[in-house]
Amino acid sequence: MPSARPSLALGTAECKAAPVGQDAAVTSTRTGPRSVADHRAVVASLVAPQPEELVPLARARGRVLARDVVAGVSLPSFANSAMDGYAVRAAEVAHPPVVLPVGADIPAGRTDVPPLEPGTAHRIMTGAPLPDGADAVVPVEATDGGVERVELRETPLPGAHVRRPGEDVEAGAVVLRAGTVLRAPQVGVLAAVGVADVPVRRRPVVLVLSTGSELVAPGTELRPGQIYESNGPMLAAAVEEAGGRAELLRFVPDDVEQFLGRLADRVGAVDGGVDLVLTSGGVSAGAYEVVKDAFTGRGVEFVKVAMQPGGPQGAGRLDGAGGVAVVTLPGNPVSSHVSFEVFVRPALRAAIGHPHPDRAAVTATLGERWTSPAGRRQFRRGVLDAVRGVVTEVGGPASHLLGALARAECLVVVPEDVTELAEGSAVEVWLLDA
Amino acid sequence: MPSARPSLALGTAECKAAPVGQDAAVTSTRTGPRSVADHRAVVASLVAPQPEELVPLARARGRVLARDVVAGVSLPSFANSAMDGYAVRAAEVAHPPVVLPVGADIPAGRTDVPPLEPGTAHRIMTGAPLPDGADAVVPVEATDGGVERVELRETPLPGAHVRRPGEDVEAGAVVLRAGTVLRAPQVGVLAAVGVADVPVRRRPVVLVLSTGSELVAPGTELRPGQIYESNGPMLAAAVEEAGGRAELLRFVPDDVEQFLGRLADRVGAVDGGVDLVLTSGGVSAGAYEVVKDAFTGRGVEFVKVAMQPGGPQGAGRLDGAGGVAVVTLPGNPVSSHVSFEVFVRPALRAAIGHPHPDRAAVTATLGERWTSPAGRRQFRRGVLDAVRGVVTEVGGPASHLLGALARAECLVVVPEDVTELAEGSAVEVWLLDA
Repeated sequence: MPSARPSLALGTAECKAAPVGQDAAVTSTRTGPRSVADHRAVVASLVAPQPEELVPLARARGRVLARDVVAGVSLPSFANSAMDGYAVRAAEVAHPPVVLPVGADIPAGRTDVPPLEPGTAHRIMTGAPLPDGADAVVPVEATDGGVERVELRETPLPGAHVRRPGEDVEAGAVVLRAGTVLRAPQVGVLAAVGVADVPVRRRPVVLVLSTGSELVAPGTELRPGQIYESNGPMLAAAVEEAGGRAELLRFVPDDVEQFLGRLADRVGAVDGGVDLVLTSGGVSAGAYEVVKDAFTGRGVEFVKVAMQPGGPQGAGRLDGAGGVAVVTLPGNPVSSHVSFEVFVRPALRAAIGHPHPDRAAVTATLGERWTSPAGRRQFRRGVLDAVRGVVTEVGGPASHLLGALARAECLVVVPEDVTELAEGSAVEVWLLDA
Repeated sequence: MPSARPSLALGTAECKAAPVGQDAAVTSTRTGPRSVADHRAVVASLVAPQPEELVPLARARGRVLARDVVAGVSLPSFANSAMDGYAVRAAEVAHPPVVLPVGADIPAGRTDVPPLEPGTAHRIMTGAPLPDGADAVVPVEATDGGVERVELRETPLPGAHVRRPGEDVEAGAVVLRAGTVLRAPQVGVLAAVGVADVPVRRRPVVLVLSTGSELVAPGTELRPGQIYESNGPMLAAAVEEAGGRAELLRFVPDDVEQFLGRLADRVGAVDGGVDLVLTSGGVSAGAYEVVKDAFTGRGVEFVKVAMQPGGPQGAGRLDGAGGVAVVTLPGNPVSSHVSFEVFVRPALRAAIGHPHPDRAAVTATLGERWTSPAGRRQFRRGVLDAVRGVVTEVGGPASHLLGALARAECLVVVPEDVTELAEGSAVEVWLLDA
């Protein structure tokens, strides 16, 4: 019995609200950067709660129930034996050993079970229906296992080894609540109560765009100045992990008209509609910023958010493309990923009614000294020594260190008002692989 | 800064080896029931390490890398600007303000970057290649933003705001290790180094069979004695959760010849072969046990394992069907699920090289008094109050309580030699939703 770290252990199941929600009441009347909480609220408001859809049970794994499911049958649906043995009237076995003739054989699944005549026993298998007249089962281990006649060596209490109808689930009762994530046991119980199609929340459809004429597809040789496109595949994977469905639109040239045309075409072409257009890149203060140029004045607001990485953010509903929701993430891969984690992932999970929109967050001890800029919430990439409970940075704070991000196990949150963290400080950690 | 439970928190990331591995050295020369560890080793030996296959990056999410991936290019692959600003020779801006003519505009993606002539600056965007001759970038915020001529107001150190080639990942270096689970950041870094197809471990194919003539499909009316088939969908979902691919074969009649024939047909029909046949039901001491009857003497060994639920287990390689691996689970749904968790899930995950074959395990405080049978390891279904760290039972120990299993968050392990647990005892808990 492991008891070495009884309290240490608990956090594993803990999924406390991420602190970004704690200052959600702060509104930005100031002219400085927007707070993380405010931008989070803006993004959350853009992704509507998803409607219900019916999905065959075999494809429902991982989905979230849209409403309570009521059992159409009881579990068990009929009194049945909990053991292999003999169905009897308990009172007739009051003075063992008792020898009774065996009236019938009842395998599981038999639908024409004869009633139990007084003074007889029925041989019965686990799960088989208890015959009318019987009130207990004597396990085969307490008998001689006879087929014609059986010697019963123990007195059962009335009800012994009998599963009562509805003792697990009563017909008409709620068997699973809205908001339940469907894993194997939940799939099992839905099957058991006869559910063939499951009411789940639709997966929000996210159109993932990567902009930048420097981006090329893998498999081609890089020319100087070119890079392989990585944000699109990364964000598409993140969308799917969060419970959404990603459509990837790649290699949009850095030209506003082409960009808007191609976007409108694609939004219109997605069956069932697009819930969110997610871009990366093209939003900073540079001269060639196609996303910013295309969306400015068309319903998308561009702001600086008081965070690092991921300061330049945008969000809104696009005029002229059915008012589709747009979130623009910065182009540096680490900024993109962190912004997705902070703003988009919780919005998508809330939209599908997930019970835990936020990453599991824990408190750990910082294994080194850090400085952090004032006025910005930092999200740094860390690795966690779980035995010692110590977190250290992997890579560094720079937002282009994708290789380091891929080795990270967690994000470490440094609040806006903290500029120095001594070694040994308690820090908040978001677990990326939980 | 949350600091209330600094040590509490740590366990969240902890994934210690499940204790079933601790007594793996015990071998069964005795005639009593087989130990959990021994049967676990038998099942593990049946599922071979999976071969490597190449999967397009867009479909690699959630898969496990089969081997180290070496970067084909450095990240960054060329020196580039970390800011929007002006590429300069740092020494020429030693005494600011300095006004220089702007020689060229370098957007990200430009492949024909002219060298920087002495006494000039190039306007440069984030991510754009640093021109030959330049050794630093002055951020646009420290300039007048000029297009023809620019006033530079700060002296950069040499190398300032320049990302060096390979400072994140060096070409030729291992960018991700074998055994890495591919989540969004890992997908991103593979894309960034130009990987189009990813070497991952093949998903083991598991043919899931449910036996029992009492089983009917959802959507039909139950006659007395019939139940909706639930183990098949539940185990198929569990196989997929574990990283395998499930093929479901339903409603095998309780007849040995039909059973073996149908099984051989189906094993032969699965493209790429079947790695494991997983049955449920038909293995206990009853008279009508098709699985036991069909497999006995054909390479599958049936044993009692010292656990509850899930005592009757079987495993082996089937003579005459290409020696396909077979694991037989008991038919009660809770027994089926628990056996899968204890024996099959870790075997499947080990076969794909997953770094954490076992469930995350933590220690919690028991919120009630329990008794437990001697000589059997019990796996009871619990709910965990994560704030107090207290676990209590949901439903009861009976193995037909599927509705209760579906509300459970964890399995609570009671060792073989423990028969009484006082309220407040430390117990080992396997988290089912982590």
